[in-house]
Amino acid sequence: MIEKLIANIEKTKAPIVVGLDPMLSYIPEYITEKAFEEYGETLEGAAEAVWQYNKGIIDEIYDVAPAVKPQIAMYEQFGIPGLKVFEKTVAYCKEKGMVVIGDIKRGDIGSTSAAYANAHIGKIHVGSKSIVPFGEDIVTVNPYLGSDGVNPFLKVCKEENKGVFILVKTSNPSSGEFQDRIIDGRPLYEWVAEKVNEWGQDLCKGDYCEVGAVAGATYPEVGKTLRKLMPKSYILVPGYGAQGGKGKDLVHFFNPDGLGAIVNSSRGIITAYKQAGYEEFSDKDFGAAARKAVKVMQEDIAGALGWL
Amino acid sequence: MIEKLIANIEKTKAPIVVGLDPMLSYIPEYITEKAFEEYGETLEGAAEAVWQYNKGIIDEIYDVAPAVKPQIAMYEQFGIPGLKVFEKTVAYCKEKGMVVIGDIKRGDIGSTSAAYANAHIGKIHVGSKSIVPFGEDIVTVNPYLGSDGVNPFLKVCKEENKGVFILVKTSNPSSGEFQDRIIDGRPLYEWVAEKVNEWGQDLCKGDYCEVGAVAGATYPEVGKTLRKLMPKSYILVPGYGAQGGKGKDLVHFFNPDGLGAIVNSSRGIITAYKQAGYEEFSDKDFGAAARKAVKVMQEDIAGALGWL
Repeated sequence: MIEKLIANIEKTKAPIVVGLDPMLSYIPEYITEKAFEEYGETLEGAAEAVWQYNKGIIDEIYDVAPAVKPQIAMYEQFGIPGLKVFEKTVAYCKEKGMVVIGDIKRGDIGSTSAAYANAHIGKIHVGSKSIVPFGEDIVTVNPYLGSDGVNPFLKVCKEENKGVFILVKTSNPSSGEFQDRIIDGRPLYEWVAEKVNEWGQDLCKGDYCEVGAVAGATYPEVGKTLRKLMPKSYILVPGYGAQGGKGKDLVHFFNPDGLGAIVNSSRGIITAYKQAGYEEFSDKDFGAAARKAVKVMQEDIAGALGWL
Repeated sequence: MIEKLIANIEKTKAPIVVGLDPMLSYIPEYITEKAFEEYGETLEGAAEAVWQYNKGIIDEIYDVAPAVKPQIAMYEQFGIPGLKVFEKTVAYCKEKGMVVIGDIKRGDIGSTSAAYANAHIGKIHVGSKSIVPFGEDIVTVNPYLGSDGVNPFLKVCKEENKGVFILVKTSNPSSGEFQDRIIDGRPLYEWVAEKVNEWGQDLCKGDYCEVGAVAGATYPEVGKTLRKLMPKSYILVPGYGAQGGKGKDLVHFFNPDGLGAIVNSSRGIITAYKQAGYEEFSDKDFGAAARKAVKVMQEDIAGALGWL
C-alpha cells in the first residue's frame, strides 16, 4: 500500500491527507435540515448529513489529494448508522482512487489485535467465505501493549498488501506526559520509533516500508530525530493548520528525497467554507472551498520542500 | 457506576467479570449452522450465531456474575452486523441487571476522545434530541496520549454516573516492552497508576472512585504495588484461567476490605462446555457449563479472599 500512497503523492505533488472528521456543527444547515426531514433527529439523520457532507468534499478533492483519513470516532459517535457511513466513506474514497487511512488507534493483546486487523485491513472467515468488513488501506495503531499488539496488524499487512501508522509522538498538548518521559537517556517516543523501524524491516518495498509512524506537526523539532531513527518509515503528521504547524516547520519530517511524510489537515480543509479568506464560497460551495484549501496547503508544503 | 458494580459483587459474592469475547470457533456447530441457513455465510450469519451464543450464556450467568466485559474487537471483526450484536448484547446484559464493561481500549486527542466517550458511555446531541449510541456502563481506555485523551471520558463519567478502567499493566507477554521501562527509578506503568489515582480524585463515591485500572493476573507481584499507588481504584484483572493466574495469586490485587478488584475470565467461562472437567455438558448445554465455570471461579477467588 505504501507504493500506492507514494504514487498518489507524486501524481498530485501533494504530501497531504485530508482528515474526514465531521462534526454536526461543521455541516451546512441546509444539509442537516434535509437529512433530519427525511430521517428525523435520529442517529440515521445525523449519519445521512455526515454522508452528504463527506460526499460533497470527496467529489471535489479526489484528484488533488492523494489520501483521506477518516477518524472513526467521529462516526462511532453516531452509533451503527454512523459506522455505516464510515464504511460507505471508505468504499467511496477507494472507488475514487484515494488511499484510505482509517484513524482507528486500536491496539490490544494478540488475539484481539488480530480481530481488529481483520476488521479494518483484512478479511474474516465465515464458513467457507472470506469477507472484507471495513476495508481501509492503512490504519493507525496504538503501541502501548508492545509487539504482541502490533504483530497481528503486520501479519495482515503482509498478506493483504496494507499498511499501518504506529502512534509515536501525538499532536495533543499532554502527549508528553508519558511519551516524553526519559528512559535510558531518551524519551519514550524514541524507543517506540526504534520499534517502528524494526517492525517495518520485513515489510519494505523500495525505499519505504508498510510500517509508518504518527508524529505531530506541533512538535517540529521531533521530526529530525525521528527521520534518523526510522529512515524507511513514512511519518503521518497531524496538527497542520488548526492545531498549529505550517509548511516550513515540517520539512524535517521529510527525507532528502522529498518523500517520507504525509501531512494531515482536517478542520482546515473540511470547514474551509466557514473560514477567513474563503468568503467567496457560500455554504453551498463547501466542497469547492475544501478543494481550494487543499491547493493552498499543497502550495505551502510543496513550496517549503522546493517541489514547486 | 462503581457503587452498582460493588453492590453486584457483594450480592453475588463474586468479584468476577465474564468476558464475552466470542470467536466463531467457540460456538457450537448447531448454532452456526442454523444461523448460516437463515442468513447465509455472511457477516449477518456470523453475527446471528454470536448473538445466540451470547444470549445462551447470559441467560445462565446473569444471577451469579455481577458484570460482563464484551471485547468490541470480537464484534467489530464482523463489521456492521457484528457491532449491532455488540449493541444488543450491551442492552440485554443491562436489562438483566449486570454491569457492562465495554472493552474498547479507545484513547485519542481531546475532541476525538470526547466523541468516543459520547459514543460508549454518554449521549450524542442530534438537533434537539439526546441519543445514547452504545450505552455501556464502563469502558477501558488507553493512556498513551496522556490526560488530554482521558479527561473527556472523566467528564462523561461525572455527568452520566459512569466509569472507566485505564490500561496500566496489560496481561500480554510483551506488555513490558514499554510499560516496564524504567523512568526515574520506576516502571512506566507505575507512573500511569499514579495518574489513575489522580484522575479519580474528583470521582470518588464512598471508598472507591469511578476511575479504575487494568492490570494483568499474569503479573501478580504487580498487584501489591498498584494497590498502594491507587488505594481507591478498582483493578480489572484479565488473564485468569486460560492466560495463567489462579485465585491465590490474585489476593494482592484486592484491598484489606476484600474489595478493590474484579477478575475477568473469557474463554475459561464461555467455552467451558469444551473443556476437561465439563464432560457432563453437551454442546447444547454451553450456557449451563458457563454457569458452572463461573461458580468454580467464584469459589476459587472468594475462597482465596476468605469470603466463604
